[in-house]
Amino acid sequence: MSVRFSDRIRSMNESPIRKLVPIAAAAKAKGKKVYHLNIGQPDITTPPSFLQSIRDFSQDVIAYATSPGDPKLIDAIIEYYKGYDMHFESDEVLITNGGSEALMFAMMALCDPGDEVLVPEPFYANYNAFSRCINVNVVPITTKAEEGFHLPSEAEIESRITPKTRAIVLSNPGNPTGVIYSREEMDMLSRIVRKHDMSIVADEVYREFVYDGLKYTSFGNLPEIADRVIIVDSVSKRYSACGARIGSLASKNKDFSKQVLKLCQGRLCVPTLEQVGATALYGTPTSYLDEVNEEYQKRRNTLYKALKEMPGVICEEPKGAFYVVIKMPVDDAEKFAVWMLEHFDVNNETTMIAPAEGFYSTPGLGRNEARLAYVLKDEDLAKAMDILKAGLEAYPGRVESAIPAM
Amino acid sequence: MSVRFSDRIRSMNESPIRKLVPIAAAAKAKGKKVYHLNIGQPDITTPPSFLQSIRDFSQDVIAYATSPGDPKLIDAIIEYYKGYDMHFESDEVLITNGGSEALMFAMMALCDPGDEVLVPEPFYANYNAFSRCINVNVVPITTKAEEGFHLPSEAEIESRITPKTRAIVLSNPGNPTGVIYSREEMDMLSRIVRKHDMSIVADEVYREFVYDGLKYTSFGNLPEIADRVIIVDSVSKRYSACGARIGSLASKNKDFSKQVLKLCQGRLCVPTLEQVGATALYGTPTSYLDEVNEEYQKRRNTLYKALKEMPGVICEEPKGAFYVVIKMPVDDAEKFAVWMLEHFDVNNETTMIAPAEGFYSTPGLGRNEARLAYVLKDEDLAKAMDILKAGLEAYPGRVESAIPAM
Repeated sequence: MSVRFSDRIRSMNESPIRKLVPIAAAAKAKGKKVYHLNIGQPDITTPPSFLQSIRDFSQDVIAYATSPGDPKLIDAIIEYYKGYDMHFESDEVLITNGGSEALMFAMMALCDPGDEVLVPEPFYANYNAFSRCINVNVVPITTKAEEGFHLPSEAEIESRITPKTRAIVLSNPGNPTGVIYSREEMDMLSRIVRKHDMSIVADEVYREFVYDGLKYTSFGNLPEIADRVIIVDSVSKRYSACGARIGSLASKNKDFSKQVLKLCQGRLCVPTLEQVGATALYGTPTSYLDEVNEEYQKRRNTLYKALKEMPGVICEEPKGAFYVVIKMPVDDAEKFAVWMLEHFDVNNETTMIAPAEGFYSTPGLGRNEARLAYVLKDEDLAKAMDILKAGLEAYPGRVESAIPAM
Repeated sequence: MSVRFSDRIRSMNESPIRKLVPIAAAAKAKGKKVYHLNIGQPDITTPPSFLQSIRDFSQDVIAYATSPGDPKLIDAIIEYYKGYDMHFESDEVLITNGGSEALMFAMMALCDPGDEVLVPEPFYANYNAFSRCINVNVVPITTKAEEGFHLPSEAEIESRITPKTRAIVLSNPGNPTGVIYSREEMDMLSRIVRKHDMSIVADEVYREFVYDGLKYTSFGNLPEIADRVIIVDSVSKRYSACGARIGSLASKNKDFSKQVLKLCQGRLCVPTLEQVGATALYGTPTSYLDEVNEEYQKRRNTLYKALKEMPGVICEEPKGAFYVVIKMPVDDAEKFAVWMLEHFDVNNETTMIAPAEGFYSTPGLGRNEARLAYVLKDEDLAKAMDILKAGLEAYPGRVESAIPAM
């Protein structure tokens, strides 16, 4: 006899963002340089206040923090939200282990096993991970590269709703698509959740990453659904502090925080020092965020210009976050990604991309797609794109058109 | 209409360890000093290497760590285990956000909704939290203060096993009971899990806290069930670093780590800096642990001596960890705990205890019991016990005997 693992964990897939890491490691071990477009790990310097405030920490005992989170950090986040005309009280914000735990807790609070959440696909692949391990079913609302990944009609979305649908979970700006939902799309979702008694879990960790002067509206700016909106946030991308793992949940629905507090108590607290550092981060002047935005807009331009020049590649210009999903003229994006690592190089350099199939829950979709993160500095990004272009031309599994068979 | 929260979250209780915190805060606000026996937050100094190694961290970007954990920390833990004659390879250890996440991941990997885990009760109250939020049912094996919380007979344990029982989850040394399981008890559990095709999730975070020269055996020392044992560990108590939130999972069953890695990837990683600090902690000379052990044994003696002198209090001498569960001559331990905070003091000082009902899953059990953590320095502990004794004498809800009616 051997140990029987649960169905829920066996149904989970390896992260499409991280599963090729061992293959990349093997390539690097052979001396090949790998440009990482697979993972949203920015190369931007973390504001030095993060490390400095931690260095200044001088208590003798590294003690538990309070379960809802360090009150100073909660206050700092409340201040930050005011800049977006969102007004939270201290019992409406909870600190979490990254946006990941925030998403997991929100789904646990809203869904029992077998319940459903609507998610525009392609979506952040870990939504699949979180939902499967707690037996929540993701019901996809398919969106398309050709349409810039904007939402389908109200009727089409409503057709996916069942008595088990508890929430719409989405990221805005969108990971992996770079979409920014229009005010009309947001009003449509607002109507839907009111009509069907649902919540919106709004993953807005890329709030500052909006380009071309587009106006950004948070789901926290819609007063008519204030008690139905749960905002997921994180310092990871905003302050280039992915390794701090500090996220948060905010909702005007005080019962939500009250329920989730029980989960927070269950895991006791979020690391004490990281909360000290994150508090300092939220005090960063907004000029830092403006500069970062400018830098990413430049990178977005570099990336998009290069993509437009690749024959057979289909994508719309991404408007936010720092990702884009592209359709490629290949038989299978994962095979292509592996081939790039194992068999292709330009001057001993290659590019790593994330196959997009794991960002879909509809079987078969995304098979010829990849997510690219434009988190490298401009000259590296340009090189990585040249290599990608050359790889697509040389790849033995190249097909005529990126339009999927199905 | 208002948001409907999930049954799973509504079924969760507030942490019995933390639910009285607002009442304690109110008492403190009025100038009352509160001795905290309710929570296992040691006052021992964290080895300075923790903060020092973090202060020395000098990378510009606080980047994601790898999902399984920092290889240096994994190596350090492997080295640590060798001191206990446990031999793990690097793909058999995963770093987690505290022991809490380790326990949650282990249960997710082994149990589907509706599956059961056997847990000797009273048990660490958060086992209830973890299991409820992932719909796993805790089936208690009741143990008693009068018997030093040792296990009942093999037949009695087997009588609780159903086709849905997947694992035995326990802490050894025991939180909240201070029990150390004998080799005979461990062999009994080993027979049971082999016979019924189950796993053992062994929460051994108090491994160094064993007193009176008792010999300690880890579940990792039983080769006949090596592929069925999952060891949960943490730096929290061992190195007085509760706020670091660094735990780990170790198992000779490589399939287990492979499955759980998917959960690790889902939440991306554990904080980068905390792992740097924890790596340094695992390099602490064992003399530190010896000194800490000596200190706690002294405190245990102080506590137990005081308890023996309290009329109507029932408990056996705890042999490990830094807790004890006592039966008190009171109508209701929670009422008593609240009364101590709100209405009782000795020279404006009082004692906070954790009502034990939340450490049981059998309804009604533990109602006149409390968990005391002996984590204060000796003189404070002595004072806290004097106050407790005086409180028990003065309490209006005092009853004749601590023996429960049921």
